[in-house]
Amino acid sequence: MGQVRVKVNFFDTDAMAVVHHANYFRWFEIGRVEFLREAGITLNELIADHIVFPITDVSCKYRASARFDDVVIIETIAKVLTPVKLVFDYKVIREVDGELLAEGHSQGVFTSMETGKLIKLPKEYFDKLKAIQQ
Amino acid sequence: MGQVRVKVNFFDTDAMAVVHHANYFRWFEIGRVEFLREAGITLNELIADHIVFPITDVSCKYRASARFDDVVIIETIAKVLTPVKLVFDYKVIREVDGELLAEGHSQGVFTSMETGKLIKLPKEYFDKLKAIQQ
Amino acid sequence: MGQVRVKVNFFDTDAMAVVHHANYFRWFEIGRVEFLREAGITLNELIADHIVFPITDVSCKYRASARFDDVVIIETIAKVLTPVKLVFDYKVIREVDGELLAEGHSQGVFTSMETGKLIKLPKEYFDKLKAIQQ
Amino acid sequence: MGQVRVKVNFFDTDAMAVVHHANYFRWFEIGRVEFLREAGITLNELIADHIVFPITDVSCKYRASARFDDVVIIETIAKVLTPVKLVFDYKVIREVDGELLAEGHSQGVFTSMETGKLIKLPKEYFDKLKAIQQ
Repeated sequence: MGQVRVKVNFFDTDAMAVVHHANYFRWFEIGRVEFLREAGITLNELIADHIVFPITDVSCKYRASARFDDVVIIETIAKVLTPVKLVFDYKVIREVDGELLAEGHSQGVFTSMETGKLIKLPKEYFDKLKAIQQ
Repeated sequence: MGQVRVKVNFFDTDAMAVVHHANYFRWFEIGRVEFLREAGITLNELIADHIVFPITDVSCKYRASARFDDVVIIETIAKVLTPVKLVFDYKVIREVDGELLAEGHSQGVFTSMETGKLIKLPKEYFDKLKAIQQ
Repeated sequence: MGQVRVKVNFFDTDAMAVVHHANYFRWFEIGRVEFLREAGITLNELIADHIVFPITDVSCKYRASARFDDVVIIETIAKVLTPVKLVFDYKVIREVDGELLAEGHSQGVFTSMETGKLIKLPKEYFDKLKAIQQ
Repeated sequence: MGQVRVKVNFFDTDAMAVVHHANYFRWFEIGRVEFLREAGITLNELIADHIVFPITDVSCKYRASARFDDVVIIETIAKVLTPVKLVFDYKVIREVDGELLAEGHSQGVFTSMETGKLIKLPKEYFDKLKAIQQ
């Protein structure tokens, strides 16, 4: 599991004075990027190896609103890590009182930048993912 | 069913040269707002009546990428319209060739701006929703 | 001069219930893209020719707020069109009453995608820009 | 002067694989909010006192591109702090090599949330701003 701490910006809010619901998927992306970094993998390395990781499926349940200047913790939990796809769950937790604000989910698949087709993640990368799961 | 035509802006794209996946939820919002307008209801009227409509649940499956300058059609299909909640499905279709790019879903619940509690949509509004379903 | 009509989305607003000031630069981009299209030039064509058009300088003065569901007209006025740079002024006008909401400015320079260096816009493109100015 | 460290997110980029130019104004907002916090003032306090701080004027010159996963330093320099308006300059500096990526500017004016008219910042707040300038 990875954890990232994010402060809610004013520009993240909408006219209801809460974080716009689409922005939670931006937070999940931050969580995913940092999870991979903790495993020793950066998106830039993958891209340099012509591997991209498009998202095929996402969802989010919203329980309570995040507001400007809240600090939220994004928890990123690996559910399925294979050489073909990565599935994560996410929790968004308000730091000050530990309230669960939202729960999310994403699936992404490894894809060749050259052919646009699905590929298997090379062993050097996958070994790093396996190591972080144990 | 409502239909809105949207042109993909440059600022909607990310470094993969495709529309960032979080932005599809912005398009679903556009679809929802226009669906309600076709039923004779505007968000501003609801807000003037202290009724808000927070989203509690969303999902999206991505099938192919939208790119800068594509024109996409957002189809908004009412699944459940009750005085308590509105559930919509969405399709994002590339206009030029009819390809289905993404399928989405949202649930929202009517809520009092004063109490923050769930409320029933007043009959004057709900009658308009029933009329558009038939 | 080009004109584009834009409806303000809910996601464009912030917790002050007005359009976030950074989003006006997104509107100016829409105006610029459509101005070039009216001249017979699309960004995608330029990119296919390895020409990009990075923005080097922008500004905006805000006079009144745009709000959700307002329709605004983006006027794009060519100030300097040379093979090296394009300078535009912008006006954002609320359609319903003609009120001027904001005035903006941008400068962009033609650049090679391969070298990252400034280039002159090929004559075939520049002739189209000259034609629209007259 | 205030300094904030910001990591460039994937969703901040556009199809040119650089940070979209409008997003720099979001960074300036982060800088401004943190500058005020260092002076002992939070936007939420101001809002609770019915004081808002709309931006009337912004500009930015772009010198080099920020890219995904870059760390940038946002420097916020107070130019004019009066009970009527706050004028800031900003620098965006790439942390790894100290390169200046952009220089910006903003002016905001204190405004009553009730009347929408310009007001003077109450002395309790302004004294905090004076203290940080010295």
